[in-house]
Amino acid sequence: MVHKQQAGEVVAQARVRAGLTWAQIAERLGKPEVWTTAALLGQHPMSPSDAAAAAELLDLGADVVEALQRQPYRGSGEAVVADPTIYRFHEALQVYGPALKELIHEKFGDGIMSAINFRMQVERVPDPEGDRVVVTWDGKFLDYRW
Amino acid sequence: MVHKQQAGEVVAQARVRAGLTWAQIAERLGKPEVWTTAALLGQHPMSPSDAAAAAELLDLGADVVEALQRQPYRGSGEAVVADPTIYRFHEALQVYGPALKELIHEKFGDGIMSAINFRMQVERVPDPEGDRVVVTWDGKFLDYRW
Amino acid sequence: MVHKQQAGEVVAQARVRAGLTWAQIAERLGKPEVWTTAALLGQHPMSPSDAAAAAELLDLGADVVEALQRQPYRGSGEAVVADPTIYRFHEALQVYGPALKELIHEKFGDGIMSAINFRMQVERVPDPEGDRVVVTWDGKFLDYRW
Amino acid sequence: MVHKQQAGEVVAQARVRAGLTWAQIAERLGKPEVWTTAALLGQHPMSPSDAAAAAELLDLGADVVEALQRQPYRGSGEAVVADPTIYRFHEALQVYGPALKELIHEKFGDGIMSAINFRMQVERVPDPEGDRVVVTWDGKFLDYRW
Amino acid sequence: MVHKQQAGEVVAQARVRAGLTWAQIAERLGKPEVWTTAALLGQHPMSPSDAAAAAELLDLGADVVEALQRQPYRGSGEAVVADPTIYRFHEALQVYGPALKELIHEKFGDGIMSAINFRMQVERVPDPEGDRVVVTWDGKFLDYRW
Amino acid sequence: MVHKQQAGEVVAQARVRAGLTWAQIAERLGKPEVWTTAALLGQHPMSPSDAAAAAELLDLGADVVEALQRQPYRGSGEAVVADPTIYRFHEALQVYGPALKELIHEKFGDGIMSAINFRMQVERVPDPEGDRVVVTWDGKFLDYRW
Amino acid sequence: MVHKQQAGEVVAQARVRAGLTWAQIAERLGKPEVWTTAALLGQHPMSPSDAAAAAELLDLGADVVEALQRQPYRGSGEAVVADPTIYRFHEALQVYGPALKELIHEKFGDGIMSAINFRMQVERVPDPEGDRVVVTWDGKFLDYRW
Amino acid sequence: MVHKQQAGEVVAQARVRAGLTWAQIAERLGKPEVWTTAALLGQHPMSPSDAAAAAELLDLGADVVEALQRQPYRGSGEAVVADPTIYRFHEALQVYGPALKELIHEKFGDGIMSAINFRMQVERVPDPEGDRVVVTWDGKFLDYRW
Amino acid sequence: MVHKQQAGEVVAQARVRAGLTWAQIAERLGKPEVWTTAALLGQHPMSPSDAAAAAELLDLGADVVEALQRQPYRGSGEAVVADPTIYRFHEALQVYGPALKELIHEKFGDGIMSAINFRMQVERVPDPEGDRVVVTWDGKFLDYRW
Amino acid sequence: MVHKQQAGEVVAQARVRAGLTWAQIAERLGKPEVWTTAALLGQHPMSPSDAAAAAELLDLGADVVEALQRQPYRGSGEAVVADPTIYRFHEALQVYGPALKELIHEKFGDGIMSAINFRMQVERVPDPEGDRVVVTWDGKFLDYRW
Repeated sequence: MVHKQQAGEVVAQARVRAGLTWAQIAERLGKPEVWTTAALLGQHPMSPSDAAAAAELLDLGADVVEALQRQPYRGSGEAVVADPTIYRFHEALQVYGPALKELIHEKFGDGIMSAINFRMQVERVPDPEGDRVVVTWDGKFLDYRW
Repeated sequence: MVHKQQAGEVVAQARVRAGLTWAQIAERLGKPEVWTTAALLGQHPMSPSDAAAAAELLDLGADVVEALQRQPYRGSGEAVVADPTIYRFHEALQVYGPALKELIHEKFGDGIMSAINFRMQVERVPDPEGDRVVVTWDGKFLDYRW
Repeated sequence: MVHKQQAGEVVAQARVRAGLTWAQIAERLGKPEVWTTAALLGQHPMSPSDAAAAAELLDLGADVVEALQRQPYRGSGEAVVADPTIYRFHEALQVYGPALKELIHEKFGDGIMSAINFRMQVERVPDPEGDRVVVTWDGKFLDYRW
Repeated sequence: MVHKQQAGEVVAQARVRAGLTWAQIAERLGKPEVWTTAALLGQHPMSPSDAAAAAELLDLGADVVEALQRQPYRGSGEAVVADPTIYRFHEALQVYGPALKELIHEKFGDGIMSAINFRMQVERVPDPEGDRVVVTWDGKFLDYRW
Repeated sequence: MVHKQQAGEVVAQARVRAGLTWAQIAERLGKPEVWTTAALLGQHPMSPSDAAAAAELLDLGADVVEALQRQPYRGSGEAVVADPTIYRFHEALQVYGPALKELIHEKFGDGIMSAINFRMQVERVPDPEGDRVVVTWDGKFLDYRW
Repeated sequence: MVHKQQAGEVVAQARVRAGLTWAQIAERLGKPEVWTTAALLGQHPMSPSDAAAAAELLDLGADVVEALQRQPYRGSGEAVVADPTIYRFHEALQVYGPALKELIHEKFGDGIMSAINFRMQVERVPDPEGDRVVVTWDGKFLDYRW
Repeated sequence: MVHKQQAGEVVAQARVRAGLTWAQIAERLGKPEVWTTAALLGQHPMSPSDAAAAAELLDLGADVVEALQRQPYRGSGEAVVADPTIYRFHEALQVYGPALKELIHEKFGDGIMSAINFRMQVERVPDPEGDRVVVTWDGKFLDYRW
Repeated sequence: MVHKQQAGEVVAQARVRAGLTWAQIAERLGKPEVWTTAALLGQHPMSPSDAAAAAELLDLGADVVEALQRQPYRGSGEAVVADPTIYRFHEALQVYGPALKELIHEKFGDGIMSAINFRMQVERVPDPEGDRVVVTWDGKFLDYRW
Repeated sequence: MVHKQQAGEVVAQARVRAGLTWAQIAERLGKPEVWTTAALLGQHPMSPSDAAAAAELLDLGADVVEALQRQPYRGSGEAVVADPTIYRFHEALQVYGPALKELIHEKFGDGIMSAINFRMQVERVPDPEGDRVVVTWDGKFLDYRW
Repeated sequence: MVHKQQAGEVVAQARVRAGLTWAQIAERLGKPEVWTTAALLGQHPMSPSDAAAAAELLDLGADVVEALQRQPYRGSGEAVVADPTIYRFHEALQVYGPALKELIHEKFGDGIMSAINFRMQVERVPDPEGDRVVVTWDGKFLDYRW
């Protein structure tokens, strides 16, 4: 039995060997890039057909295909926070979290941005002073409703 | 002597009494909304003229104006994470953090999105199935360079 | 300036002095019991009219009334977990959390019970072997939807 | 020797392969759904006959059957809290825990809801605005008694 | 308003000034020693008559008397664990906890010793090799019962 | 090489297979029940003859016998605290720890109950309202002595 | 009411103003240096006569004298560990702790060095390559004895 | 490849089988007892000749000999603190740490006891009231010097 | 009585009001910049003459002057780590710490860089691609020596 | 599949067997010492040619070569902090971190030293009173820029 997390490591390795980008895999599955990458790293259950398509592209075994379809325990653990590429997002939340909260309440009232009815996008935006990483977080507003 | 954090609480209170939105304050200062809100909550030092303009709008005392100009120790502490409006951003990082990392490396190479040369925007995007909170994180790419 | 948490302590004290139950206060406000208790303890912003009604019932000062209307940072901190009456709920989540997850996925698919579009009720159910505490958690299902 | 936790993973896997729902297994064992799911995931010791019945339904080996009957160390660990489906219950406790405590004391006096003499139920309640997850926590009241 | 914890410190101080032992106070209230000491330190709500009796013995103010009757948030915090007199009990639990669990299951079946329907006693037992601290923990057995 | 902890798991398993209670094993070794159970779970070094007697009763291999005689690193870790049967003892310490400390100082002066020169006993005491778990903690008083 | 810890800070300050060393105070009280310093910092209860003698030497108020006689909650908290002068002792325990354990068991059998029946001494030992801090920890051996 | 820690466990086991005390091993290597024990448990790199001598005494394999010579990551982890024999040293630091700091500053000025230019000794000192564990910590004083 | 930490906040404030840089203060005291800044923030005891000189420059009260001369408990706490300007140093240690260790052992043998016999310097080094922060850490090598 | 961390351990071992210093390896790769050591310990991805060159020098297998080229999760974990050689750097940050922050803001304005556009060097500087470890941290200044 292969755990979701192990399956994710196998996929990450297989992708390098297959010489494919995450963007190419997403395009062949007809799914968004962030969703596809997250799902293949074990954060979403995949449909049988998506898992099969990934398996063909990346030459994955049956146990990995089965693992990709399983319902995950989501979350990536504390150790991952220390990685500088990921830490910068946590730092921005430390600095701008309360401002985000104030502005969400000001524009929408009492409630939250859903992280379930949610999509995310990463873009490279050219800039003469250095290209920019632009990440869009897009979630449905949910108001506190009794 | 007023601490930055206390100054932030005084400002938040004064804003309600003055009947102003953060957006209106930002507009009068001619500064972006997220920056203005974060600065007034104590996460950025403000220039003397910005602090004075805010003081006039919100009827703040001299010690608060002084505190707003001071260099902060940035960060908002662990307790703030539990608030549901802020927690959803942490949750999305738990679920999508490794995917963000993979895609940043794929699109840019080895490096990070800067949280210093950085801007952020919160928008309300109308949607027939429920309006959406769209937050844009926009930071300069910095490559690991020895 | 009175903090939400301090306001909650003042309310709790005032309620005892006024000789009123939470149920009676909830009934006079025409709001559910759990919502009313949580709001008066500082976990929800109250409308001006609800805050005024509570103030009259409990003889609260203007600063407490103002605090009750403020948008809260929600959450009750780690120390509260140790209280035995609250701990039993955490213990039940430790024991039955994964089973809850399995059954929610089985009955609804991939998603969560909303804690925002949510209501809760506490009842005393008579039982010859000892009356029972019955707590109903009732939240809208939200499916993972990109 | 198979640990309870490993046995739980084997069972979860076997259930998918057998094409059975937790509800169907519970029905065949004649036991409540939450209890059955929790027990098969390793949170309760099972009687020899229940374990044998489960083994037949799910085609489990003798060592798994033995593990299912063993007395567990209960609890599911910190990592599980981060999963969004489980986290929402923790969040509701953060927000409503003190209100629960107040209302239990008001309706019953000084004491707790037992998590030992306890049962729990998950239901899907249809609702035109979106079906609802309704979870009932039902425990005997125990008063502080010297 | 006096917090339960502050009230406990006032009581502890007043007891020394009054030249009374906890045992004497317990005797005059007609309550067990451990219960009385814990209640006066803020871990139990006291009845109006018990609080009044304590107030007379120890010359306590009205706000302390009110605090003693209030429902507590129970628990004494992490810092207290480091005190050597208290730590030895934690150490014994570290060493003998699993053995206690095995023997409770062996003698009673699956369940727990209640910490609610519970009493405790501290005695000094003379011994030629050095007197002994004998603490009796006595709680009703509660079996896991659905 | 078998670790003490692994040896403890092997012993626990073997005991069930041998159809023996901890009490029976303790009786055959001529040792107290709590001591015997703790030692066989790896919290005390056993003498060669005790280890050999246990090995014969439980049909243990030579490496387990060797492990049972080894000097342990005592303590059972944080995870164990969450188990409800063990947690109740921690909860009672949270609630009654400071009262225990006060009464030990009152009856003995400044010092501690030894957890080294120490014995413990678990009894089932019949009670018409439900049998009781009575645990006696009995340690030599040690006074702070320079 | 003055807390033990505050009393310790007052004493530390008063000692500097009085121009006395800890060694001189210890000598006048006729007590060992480490004991005297620890007691005046709030880690031991002092006898009325010792407290009075210290009060005279250091010109302390009645509330401080009372605090010095009170039974302490011992321990100095986590923050203190970071101080380099104190940290080196923790570091030596990290490096040599298991060796200490092995040698204590080898020389004495199964048991511990008492930290209650215990004395400690700090000396400055001249050395041509740099004087040495020599700290002697001297505690009664206590064997595990049931 | 054998890790230092594993090598330490192999050595500890081999020592028992060889029927040698740590003191005897130290004597044959011509090294102090605490140093020898710590080094063989993996806290110091050993010279090739010392490692070879230990290998001959204890019949160790080549990979263990290699591991003993490797530069360690020093420290023994949090779990070890709970062992009562080791914990007493931590407790004494909790109680006497600030007094140690005061006396070191008084006798030497601003600085620390080195834990690098450092030696330690464990002795059994006979005493009619019970033999004593006497541990000498002896480190060069280092003054804060810019 | 003013604590060292409070004194540091007063100094930081007074410096801004006096319109002096840390470099100017350091120059007038004839001390290195990092040392002077750290000492005035409460991490070193200052000599009476240095404290007096600082008091004159910054118009400090007698209690602050006294606080500056007191022996500190060094360390700046966990909260400070989150500040981005300070965090980058922690991050570099996370990434390069083991490499530093390897190279120190390679160039010097088994031992450490002293943080006591230590000096540090911050420089601004012009660079056409952006000026650089260059921090030099310079400590005496101390070899492990028994 | 070999993890980066395991690859680092294999490299560290192979280097000793090959009788090469990190400095020699760095020289043959034509890369700085700290970078080379960090990269070979798994903190940087290596180019195929650098990995191949290292493989030839150190006689590494193909899976290790592949691991060295993989993008790492950077960071070295909490356990590493306890090692004395690494801890001294953390201690210096505890003592001098706020001073560093003040001086960076004074010399550059509001911003940080980059840990990405960053280089580090370790030197042995001869000194008659004992050679010195001099570590240079050199990062581009990044100003907070919206």
